[in-house]
Amino acid sequence: MKKKSIAIDMDGVLADTEVQYLNYYEQQFGTRLTKEIFHNVAEAEALPDGSIYKFLFTPGFFRTIPVMDGAVDAVKTLQQDYDIYIVSAAMEFPLSLFEKKEWLEEHFPFIQWNNIIFCGNKSIIDTDYMIDDYCKNLDFCKGKPILFSAGHNASITHHVRVNNWKEVETLFAEERSLARQ
Amino acid sequence: MKKKSIAIDMDGVLADTEVQYLNYYEQQFGTRLTKEIFHNVAEAEALPDGSIYKFLFTPGFFRTIPVMDGAVDAVKTLQQDYDIYIVSAAMEFPLSLFEKKEWLEEHFPFIQWNNIIFCGNKSIIDTDYMIDDYCKNLDFCKGKPILFSAGHNASITHHVRVNNWKEVETLFAEERSLARQ
Repeated sequence: MKKKSIAIDMDGVLADTEVQYLNYYEQQFGTRLTKEIFHNVAEAEALPDGSIYKFLFTPGFFRTIPVMDGAVDAVKTLQQDYDIYIVSAAMEFPLSLFEKKEWLEEHFPFIQWNNIIFCGNKSIIDTDYMIDDYCKNLDFCKGKPILFSAGHNASITHHVRVNNWKEVETLFAEERSLARQ
Repeated sequence: MKKKSIAIDMDGVLADTEVQYLNYYEQQFGTRLTKEIFHNVAEAEALPDGSIYKFLFTPGFFRTIPVMDGAVDAVKTLQQDYDIYIVSAAMEFPLSLFEKKEWLEEHFPFIQWNNIIFCGNKSIIDTDYMIDDYCKNLDFCKGKPILFSAGHNASITHHVRVNNWKEVETLFAEERSLARQ
């Protein structure tokens, strides 16, 4: 039987972008802010002086983002039962394309190159599930949308929410158990 | 009414990869071969000594491929009635990602970044039409497959075939005319 497919986002889902923003901000301004600063604020406006956009266009930013806690083990587990596609809206930052590919090779070497998609928007992606931190991707996705918690999406209530990769594993354990019934 | 969508391949469809192979071969070996050498041969084996693979991994190769005759005007025309997505299997050659993005910006500046997709394989791409020179992409595509002629696909008979961009325009003029009836 053909495995079901899951599209998994990179920034804010596999990659802990918020921590990377805080790292860059501390490096530049000497102040360590906390993740609360992202709560219920549009991502691009969470830090003062347009810092977020400056960081996003800084070479090396995407290459060195810390991996989200638990992501590697969870994706490895999911890969046993699902076709995993990494789908990243990378096209706005063309310099990031190569960095993102290298980042995936370093941290997720078990993801084959033919399962990686870099796109502008995700409207023509057709998988059975999509894990993402943005409604712009989830609201119109063709499969089952799963919202990965991030500061900017704290008030969203119309999607199934997972707060971390442990919860992703639990959710898919339930999906598999339902499928067997 | 939502426009129908077309996924358009780059290499061998928007970009005249065969001419670029011949250009590189001539530069390196001083002999100008003709397009007939690609006829009914696997693309990677069309030139002697593994030259094709060497060229594909040479920085600058993808950035300087000539545009396929008539592609720019045809895509501009199609864009009036269809959502155009450029879908390129670029992930095997990660160095090509940035070159391909720049190439598109130079030759197809009217294609927005959010309509560009670089992927490994195209199995999760869902558009109403797909124009491609490879059966591996067309055989399982979710929309209507359209085979763009290339030497390597000369013997394929199980897809609607177009030999050039004029024929693409004619085909879609017929599609639009049928849709109006």
